[in-house]
Amino acid sequence: MQRNPQLGPKGELSHLLTIDGLPKDILLQILDTARSFVSVTERDVKKVPLLRGKSVFNLFFEPSTRTRTTFEIAAKRLSADVINLNVATSSQTKGETLLDTVANLAAMNADMFVVRHASSGAPHLIARHMGPEIHVINAGDGRHAHPTQGLLDVYTIRHYKEDFTRLTVAVVGDVLHSRVARSEIHALTTLGVPEVRVIGPRTLIPRDIEKLGVRVFHDMDRGLDGVDVVMMLRLQNERMNGALLPSANEYFRSYGLTPERLAKAKPGALVMHPGPMNRGVEIDSAVADGPQSVILHQVTFGIAVRMAVMAILAGNG
Amino acid sequence: MQRNPQLGPKGELSHLLTIDGLPKDILLQILDTARSFVSVTERDVKKVPLLRGKSVFNLFFEPSTRTRTTFEIAAKRLSADVINLNVATSSQTKGETLLDTVANLAAMNADMFVVRHASSGAPHLIARHMGPEIHVINAGDGRHAHPTQGLLDVYTIRHYKEDFTRLTVAVVGDVLHSRVARSEIHALTTLGVPEVRVIGPRTLIPRDIEKLGVRVFHDMDRGLDGVDVVMMLRLQNERMNGALLPSANEYFRSYGLTPERLAKAKPGALVMHPGPMNRGVEIDSAVADGPQSVILHQVTFGIAVRMAVMAILAGNG
Amino acid sequence: MQRNPQLGPKGELSHLLTIDGLPKDILLQILDTARSFVSVTERDVKKVPLLRGKSVFNLFFEPSTRTRTTFEIAAKRLSADVINLNVATSSQTKGETLLDTVANLAAMNADMFVVRHASSGAPHLIARHMGPEIHVINAGDGRHAHPTQGLLDVYTIRHYKEDFTRLTVAVVGDVLHSRVARSEIHALTTLGVPEVRVIGPRTLIPRDIEKLGVRVFHDMDRGLDGVDVVMMLRLQNERMNGALLPSANEYFRSYGLTPERLAKAKPGALVMHPGPMNRGVEIDSAVADGPQSVILHQVTFGIAVRMAVMAILAGNG
Repeated sequence: MQRNPQLGPKGELSHLLTIDGLPKDILLQILDTARSFVSVTERDVKKVPLLRGKSVFNLFFEPSTRTRTTFEIAAKRLSADVINLNVATSSQTKGETLLDTVANLAAMNADMFVVRHASSGAPHLIARHMGPEIHVINAGDGRHAHPTQGLLDVYTIRHYKEDFTRLTVAVVGDVLHSRVARSEIHALTTLGVPEVRVIGPRTLIPRDIEKLGVRVFHDMDRGLDGVDVVMMLRLQNERMNGALLPSANEYFRSYGLTPERLAKAKPGALVMHPGPMNRGVEIDSAVADGPQSVILHQVTFGIAVRMAVMAILAGNG
Repeated sequence: MQRNPQLGPKGELSHLLTIDGLPKDILLQILDTARSFVSVTERDVKKVPLLRGKSVFNLFFEPSTRTRTTFEIAAKRLSADVINLNVATSSQTKGETLLDTVANLAAMNADMFVVRHASSGAPHLIARHMGPEIHVINAGDGRHAHPTQGLLDVYTIRHYKEDFTRLTVAVVGDVLHSRVARSEIHALTTLGVPEVRVIGPRTLIPRDIEKLGVRVFHDMDRGLDGVDVVMMLRLQNERMNGALLPSANEYFRSYGLTPERLAKAKPGALVMHPGPMNRGVEIDSAVADGPQSVILHQVTFGIAVRMAVMAILAGNG
Repeated sequence: MQRNPQLGPKGELSHLLTIDGLPKDILLQILDTARSFVSVTERDVKKVPLLRGKSVFNLFFEPSTRTRTTFEIAAKRLSADVINLNVATSSQTKGETLLDTVANLAAMNADMFVVRHASSGAPHLIARHMGPEIHVINAGDGRHAHPTQGLLDVYTIRHYKEDFTRLTVAVVGDVLHSRVARSEIHALTTLGVPEVRVIGPRTLIPRDIEKLGVRVFHDMDRGLDGVDVVMMLRLQNERMNGALLPSANEYFRSYGLTPERLAKAKPGALVMHPGPMNRGVEIDSAVADGPQSVILHQVTFGIAVRMAVMAILAGNG
């Protein structure tokens, strides 16, 4: 049996590369640890010394200010020293290989790399070449994975709904190009959610998605019927003028989440979105800012989840 | 009566958006607090724990390295965690609204936003949408305001001249395009300065400026006669080749501050400039580097003033 | 006798601008201090409070992410407040002079400037205009100097070979355009290395280099014969398609460090390279990743050396 590249010899979390294949006990360890950090972020002094004297490198091979910010603030609240590196504009252009660049940074006694890269698998490649004292967190690699986003979504559902085993969850929109949809489906299933639905146009739903055990709907009203959680996906602007979609207006007419559509879901169903939102495209402002929206709470919980992942990794050095 | 948007329910400072309309007691609170921080910045360990565990976001929608640096160093000397965000190159381009961007950052349990924006009123808009636990500081919005610059100027005058009520202060140059001139006039008047003069060519002095209670001079020698303080304004390069001004040389001949011109002012009159200076355009090097120049002291006091504003806001959460 | 601009009135280190002319006792002070910091960087909490409350400005007039990172991490491990400034895109473009820009930053009660500039001598110019409380470290100025790189190379040699007085050291490659080769030769000679060799094509070896007391070789096999240390220099990409060099392939054939060539050196000879490496141009991967390579250890020691320089300077305020 091949060992999970994210786990150490005793099955402890050594890197966070993808939610796929993470055992249930690790998922629960992250969620439980995150809960304790939510209270830290609400305190007057939002800081604990768990990573004091550790060096966390935000290694961004493509820019993503928002994602970088969430990891930077999480690391600083753990008292780490944080170094932001925009590597696109740096030595990569001097002909150095990715692995030489990273080995060089690792030799500065780095403790943790938060890696964002346009190529799927780059964080895995880096993790494979690091010694056991260095931990890698995937902050988004191509279309492949963005595990902390998936984890904060799961955390948010648990926070409001507590028991996973009675829920119906709908994932709505561009599943094909999403880095999180597949991971999320895996995590929800692993944690005991009995029914996950996928809703969207045929052009944006992968053909083999049913193998993951989900139910596919192309009609939004039917898909939302009776669900406990509506997880909207962001529609990338660049999809609009392609062959996959007619127009933003038409998309909204079929798959935009309006108050009327949301009324098909259970009363009190959660509305989630990873941001940034396209108001009037995939979601109506009345829903985005409405009483069922937990979109900004997702952001708050996201900091706690990232703190949890970093604290767990730092404890497993 | 409409409440001042910068003040909380008990009249305490809740945001710093503009000097206009700030009550005298708040102005004096800032100046007095700044005085105590001047001594901190002269110590061997230039750090106090007043903002420990607070998260300060430098939210720059247009670049200004110098201004960002002053706020960053001020926040770090207060022991805050500082996050620098250059938002121009970020999610704004993904079609997200300004308020969604800021709400998202606020959800990361931010405590303070230092906002720089090309559009007048952007910091006000942000402040209006924040909860009471988040404080906004305007670091320059279009031509509208740049209150910490105005405050550090007032601080500098008080440091050297102590009693405002016996002073004649001249503001020289491009008042029309200045973000600070109007605020400064307001602050000086509020603090009891009996005579404020405005000096400059007709094309750069707003027609209604006399309503603020100032005396207007188009002849520099006459305007400087007997003043205690000469506050030079920066001439933006882009004004040079426009219709408003003939040339840099000609401007210098009429309004450049030379040793001869400065001799018209009172002996020991202060020379001030907000920087960056155009030597040989609005100011002669002999004056800029001369014994009456307090230009670099303004910078030093500016750090203390920004620390004071942040400390006061953090205490009013 | 003109005083060394790097030394204070009592001969203490006041700025680090170049290795040239540094007395032996100062070189040894830096190397000895660095040794104590190597152990700090290996600890669980990689942090000492020596620069707590000090403000270190990384003042980069040309971008160099890697170099900036090494100084940033060094300063943070000394507990300094670090401000990164990319000045190219900032007020320099507003017509302000270099010295006004720096005087302005100094007035923010800076303690230390780490300066990178495309023009040789810029750090010297800045140092000459600073008061005694501000220290300047040259992080690379044009083709002139990059003293911490030279010091970390010397540190690495001492770490592995201990006694300088029995060594033969070869410097290989583009000496003509190197910022470190000359300094390194000076440092090695000052520390007692009896034989320094320079190896490279005629077009890349300065004609007057023998005045420094080195032996010049144009044949690599003969130059490497019996040496204890092989210091490779980086071949800048832009040299490849110029008049100075035929092609990368041909360069590798004549001066690339292969296992066969390395076999000419003493058994256990050190292989060093400042990075970033051009694999297959100046060095073969089998050597770069081989047992004699200490290239990544140079990086690790480089952090300790930079910490040492900063700690010594901060103690001499």
